[in-house]
Amino acid sequence: MAFTSKVFETRTVKMADREETIVAGGRHLFPLLPKAFDGIRQIGVIGWSSQGPAQAQNLRESLEGTGIRVKVGLREGSSSMKEAEAVGFTKANGTLGEMYQVIRESDMSLLLISDAAFAENYKAIFAAFRPGTTLGLSHGFLLSHLQAQGEDFPKNINVIAVCPKGMGPSVRRLYEQGREVNGAGINASFAVHQDVNGKATDYALGWSVALGSPYTFETTLESEYRSDIFGERGILLGAVHGIAESLYARYVGQGMAKDDAYLNTSESITVPISKTISRAGLKAVYEQLDEKDKAAFRRAYNASYHPCREILEEIYDDVASGNEVRSVIQATRRHGKYPMGKIDSTDMWVVGEKVRADNSRNYAPTNPETAGVYMACMMAQVDLLKERGHPYSEIANESIIEAVDSLNPYMDYKGVSYMVDNCSTTARLGARKWAARFDYILKQQAFPTIDSAVKDETPFDKFLKSGIHEVLKVCAELRPSVDIAVVPTRRG
Amino acid sequence: MAFTSKVFETRTVKMADREETIVAGGRHLFPLLPKAFDGIRQIGVIGWSSQGPAQAQNLRESLEGTGIRVKVGLREGSSSMKEAEAVGFTKANGTLGEMYQVIRESDMSLLLISDAAFAENYKAIFAAFRPGTTLGLSHGFLLSHLQAQGEDFPKNINVIAVCPKGMGPSVRRLYEQGREVNGAGINASFAVHQDVNGKATDYALGWSVALGSPYTFETTLESEYRSDIFGERGILLGAVHGIAESLYARYVGQGMAKDDAYLNTSESITVPISKTISRAGLKAVYEQLDEKDKAAFRRAYNASYHPCREILEEIYDDVASGNEVRSVIQATRRHGKYPMGKIDSTDMWVVGEKVRADNSRNYAPTNPETAGVYMACMMAQVDLLKERGHPYSEIANESIIEAVDSLNPYMDYKGVSYMVDNCSTTARLGARKWAARFDYILKQQAFPTIDSAVKDETPFDKFLKSGIHEVLKVCAELRPSVDIAVVPTRRG
Repeated sequence: MAFTSKVFETRTVKMADREETIVAGGRHLFPLLPKAFDGIRQIGVIGWSSQGPAQAQNLRESLEGTGIRVKVGLREGSSSMKEAEAVGFTKANGTLGEMYQVIRESDMSLLLISDAAFAENYKAIFAAFRPGTTLGLSHGFLLSHLQAQGEDFPKNINVIAVCPKGMGPSVRRLYEQGREVNGAGINASFAVHQDVNGKATDYALGWSVALGSPYTFETTLESEYRSDIFGERGILLGAVHGIAESLYARYVGQGMAKDDAYLNTSESITVPISKTISRAGLKAVYEQLDEKDKAAFRRAYNASYHPCREILEEIYDDVASGNEVRSVIQATRRHGKYPMGKIDSTDMWVVGEKVRADNSRNYAPTNPETAGVYMACMMAQVDLLKERGHPYSEIANESIIEAVDSLNPYMDYKGVSYMVDNCSTTARLGARKWAARFDYILKQQAFPTIDSAVKDETPFDKFLKSGIHEVLKVCAELRPSVDIAVVPTRRG
Repeated sequence: MAFTSKVFETRTVKMADREETIVAGGRHLFPLLPKAFDGIRQIGVIGWSSQGPAQAQNLRESLEGTGIRVKVGLREGSSSMKEAEAVGFTKANGTLGEMYQVIRESDMSLLLISDAAFAENYKAIFAAFRPGTTLGLSHGFLLSHLQAQGEDFPKNINVIAVCPKGMGPSVRRLYEQGREVNGAGINASFAVHQDVNGKATDYALGWSVALGSPYTFETTLESEYRSDIFGERGILLGAVHGIAESLYARYVGQGMAKDDAYLNTSESITVPISKTISRAGLKAVYEQLDEKDKAAFRRAYNASYHPCREILEEIYDDVASGNEVRSVIQATRRHGKYPMGKIDSTDMWVVGEKVRADNSRNYAPTNPETAGVYMACMMAQVDLLKERGHPYSEIANESIIEAVDSLNPYMDYKGVSYMVDNCSTTARLGARKWAARFDYILKQQAFPTIDSAVKDETPFDKFLKSGIHEVLKVCAELRPSVDIAVVPTRRG
């Protein structure tokens, strides 16, 4: 995909067998922001859940001294008002207001409310946009919802998206670290869906640079939406949850002590495996193992790739056909009567809580079987997205970088179950739904193969030859190597 | 629902707080069949999977001497030709032919081919029906598929359905037993979707009586389709599979020997619990327990009802919105590349195979916790279908009678995993998909509640007061008490 900017320097990077145009970010670009936001005097940030607090604060800080005001808009009486006030968005200083009023008075409004609130209120929200202003999204859910209803955006406004490839708290935390290390941040994709004044591309790029994105790549709302909803059901949340539960049951069944089983599954993934991938790439996880462990990794990888791919294909088809979004909307309608339960009461997470409370515990090892299963699923997701035509930047960020640099560190800090129980309703429903499917297919197909004499090395051979290794190297060069500091004082 | 017949005596039966019109069956009604099939000289039976062999043979036997020919139609070159010939449907005697040819020459054709074959060939199939002839279905999948495509049946033919509430082999086996015990058979629902000559209702009733249905009740194609696709994902296949896996893992985790755990889960459900429900109703399972076991049953029931209901509500919404059918069609498109794997390699079924091979093993006990979980799920399905407006006959047959009189006895004979691996693609996909969800929600919510001090007896109190107990009594009076003889010589 290629695009041009009147404000920022673009770069063409070679991603394996393809080329992509990107904008590399950094604080040295902040002086260009007034030019990028030409004609915009106020940016409304609507909503205060995951992305809202992060984006509002990052934008305010990046735009300091430019005269462009960042104003938070919330439902009248929202309990989030207090939280916004606590970080300085107040009615008194004119940077906090009722959401429809904020949209009406802003030149660009970023809709960061929940998917359900979107679905319920989009008509009133659209009506609040003045002609010629700009509607910003941070993921594509709304598009798919409109398509399902046979509706569309108002034709007389810009519609753009900037989608950070990490959750809100990571977007904020790495931006803060970026004060010391220029360029630290979460990568983002952008999409221009409607451009009524010829300025939409630079609005989007300015927004992304102001958020602190190390690099920004182009996508479409549809491609973003698919990979996003798919990715969180896959390796980012659903699969990692199901893989951990399934392997934990397997190891305990084989006689491993329960706390060791926790360290060898959940924590093995969220700490050593993720850190190695983040710092040195996918192959490094395998290469650091001794010969015996290498064989165990290969056995697990080869046995798990196809079963995981089968579930991932099903997820992608259900997302692309609109089934998943319909399911989410149906579920939110049921929640009054059947509230969504938590997932953290199973044996594994109860044991995990105990283990995690023990600060003197052993470091989690890189369990070779766990690594083989987890990375087979990750690669199945990479291969699927490539086959379905997604840009490499989107693939790498949505399948690997978001996992190892944003979500898994938080899962390490808070626990996988906490993450699943506390993400957006759309993600949470999807993760709960598909985790069980990954668990079952591993138990039904992968584990019996690992324990059998079957030997098919094809998946692992393809892994070694994958273009993704080169892509990750390019991505790594585009941003400084910074470990996200989820809790500044904890373990090195 | 009320209907009238020009041929058969109808009865109005009181089902709890409602009334339903039904036709009671029996061999003494066979002399009325020529009148019911007025104008029909040949019935084509298209397809030879589950229902095909059963319905073709039952119809042929019931219509013997009437001059109405039953002719089987199959794809040219189908491997099933041999099987049809083996039971006397031969090209030589004019009762076997190519399917489109058989439809063209028949006055009524029963489409008993697979859902995928339906979806692929419905246009050519419709074109083969002469105006004024009758199209028969044994479930509503085709309607939902047509609706999804925005299409409809040809307007110039009758469209009727007779849907036996049991799988083909049960329809055949009980019909054979009916030679000795008049009225033995599988209940059926019927629907008249289009009636171009005023005879459609009696065609359907004649068809059902000829199949050996003890009683026939009215429904609509839509209601049938929803309850059918929903039911097999729920207690009939998906839930029973997930419940068994989940409880097995729980009992083994608590230290129970693996073969005992198999007897206390899968076999406890398919033998003693099912037999008691079949012979004496739902409450009898509870009433036969001692005080300690009664308490365990209640604890399990109360803890499981809401989690199971939550998943069942999700299934129903996904069926009603067309999501499930879209998923099935998408899956069959993927099967070339990602064939559906079997479920029988997990620890539970491997142990189960061994246990089941031991003819001298102990009888499975009525495990009170297993019974409580299983029946909570069954009742959640009953309550949901009632709330969604299904007739009581459909509810009782699709949630209880089909389970305890048709499917569970076969599961006892062949194993739950064999059943799931060998039913229709639509059922198999659905069962695999939802079993994992029932397993997870029980593990995440029901079991922690069982083990906690929480005491909410509301679900069990509602169970005692449910109208379903009266409905089952009425259903039992409408058919003789015959245990299906899946293998005539095995265990009394």
